[in-house]
Amino acid sequence: MKRRDALKIFGGMLGGSLLLTGSSWIAGNLNASQTNNIPPLPWNYKSLDSKKVAERAYSGFYKGRCCYGAFDGIIGCLQDEVGFPFTGIPTELFVFGRSGIAETGSTCGALIGASAAIFLLTGGIDKEKQDRAYKLIQDLFRFYEQEALPKYIPEKPKLNAEIKATVATSPICHISVSRWCAQTKFKAASKERDERCARITADCALYAIKLLEAEYKGTFKGAYPLKAQTKTCMNCHEKKDALNNTKGNMECGTCHFDGRINKVTKHPPY
Amino acid sequence: MKRRDALKIFGGMLGGSLLLTGSSWIAGNLNASQTNNIPPLPWNYKSLDSKKVAERAYSGFYKGRCCYGAFDGIIGCLQDEVGFPFTGIPTELFVFGRSGIAETGSTCGALIGASAAIFLLTGGIDKEKQDRAYKLIQDLFRFYEQEALPKYIPEKPKLNAEIKATVATSPICHISVSRWCAQTKFKAASKERDERCARITADCALYAIKLLEAEYKGTFKGAYPLKAQTKTCMNCHEKKDALNNTKGNMECGTCHFDGRINKVTKHPPY
Repeated sequence: MKRRDALKIFGGMLGGSLLLTGSSWIAGNLNASQTNNIPPLPWNYKSLDSKKVAERAYSGFYKGRCCYGAFDGIIGCLQDEVGFPFTGIPTELFVFGRSGIAETGSTCGALIGASAAIFLLTGGIDKEKQDRAYKLIQDLFRFYEQEALPKYIPEKPKLNAEIKATVATSPICHISVSRWCAQTKFKAASKERDERCARITADCALYAIKLLEAEYKGTFKGAYPLKAQTKTCMNCHEKKDALNNTKGNMECGTCHFDGRINKVTKHPPY
Repeated sequence: MKRRDALKIFGGMLGGSLLLTGSSWIAGNLNASQTNNIPPLPWNYKSLDSKKVAERAYSGFYKGRCCYGAFDGIIGCLQDEVGFPFTGIPTELFVFGRSGIAETGSTCGALIGASAAIFLLTGGIDKEKQDRAYKLIQDLFRFYEQEALPKYIPEKPKLNAEIKATVATSPICHISVSRWCAQTKFKAASKERDERCARITADCALYAIKLLEAEYKGTFKGAYPLKAQTKTCMNCHEKKDALNNTKGNMECGTCHFDGRINKVTKHPPY
């Protein structure tokens, strides 16, 4: 048999088998190996329309709450515009972070979702990739701690009302919501509080892509440095050659003291 | 031309083109649509060997820290044993949660990674799926708050030492680590603290699959109820028809008061 004939027969067998069994065979046999070949982090960020991201994050809040809204606002857009490998991650997974993770009130879900998106697009398991992503995420955390939020005004608000902006002073959902309720007198289960958190979800997604755009252009500097008070605490409590008895870089004053110095110990009261 | 001949030629063309261009064509053209077809949550949990999960979580800590260790301990095993759709999610993404997310000290990363894994396997965007996953995740949070941890003894410890177990009283990394440092006098940057957190990463992954096994068998009950003190607070502060000025169900006493009642206001001091 000539090579040309053999090829034709083999081709016919292969083609016929593909025609007969259709896409299910391909799906069953290629999916596992293809998706095993997802690229290592970071995945490439493609510049996104900020209005689209913000509106998707805002409306995502009303579908799957804060953490889903922030993650889907960014990664959902990349799924639509880029496709693979983003399409392998179900953004629905990030519903886990609702109201400080499963409604426990720990870290704000919008921060979790936005942080995961930033990490996917700038981070990785190697130390230098971690550092690159963490400097952005830490700036996002301080934006959330220090800015009066929400700032974002949706195109078509679900609740068309003026929503008072407050300074959370903490990345913790429980503290952020409590301070807003105390200052506005609205209840935690109110429509106003929902709307506030929906807009903050958009704020976090928006600030995250601002950070990503800057990082990809090589212009990131960080707009929200640690507060002087927190730096003072960290000089002893965090430094490797000093007391070094804690972890973290959240605002110390929110939980620990009101700025007064104890006359005897020279230490602020806890 | 007979139908059989036409099929043969078409088959030959299709087969030939596939042979010529190889898997790159298939990859480029099928990946996006295939991975768009990832199933909705929850994805099926397949019973895992607890020893394998724990050891993978423990050693994962030394590769990518707490959040990665806990998520990869469970989902990495399912990637190996099940493949698609788990293989579409880069477990490396969860390095974002290190030391309370990007080292900010907010929610413990082991809790974040284990919570995400539980949600992927029991949750979803619909209210009833959320509730199903959240009841498990909340039990995991209270296990972490109330149990003396670490409990897990690795097969081949990276640091072969006795690691004192302490009760975190909080899901917050900063509080959990500070309490352990205060009680053991070890520094936060010590090898002992690393080993403590590596073992807690295994503890969280282990408890998460215990919850998953129970949920899939229909025997989940919840081993760690809210503390009575926290319930008392929530009766006013969380209830929809009462004060309702906060969110969350973490232990109140950890930050707010020491149990004494103010004689005038009849309220515990903050």
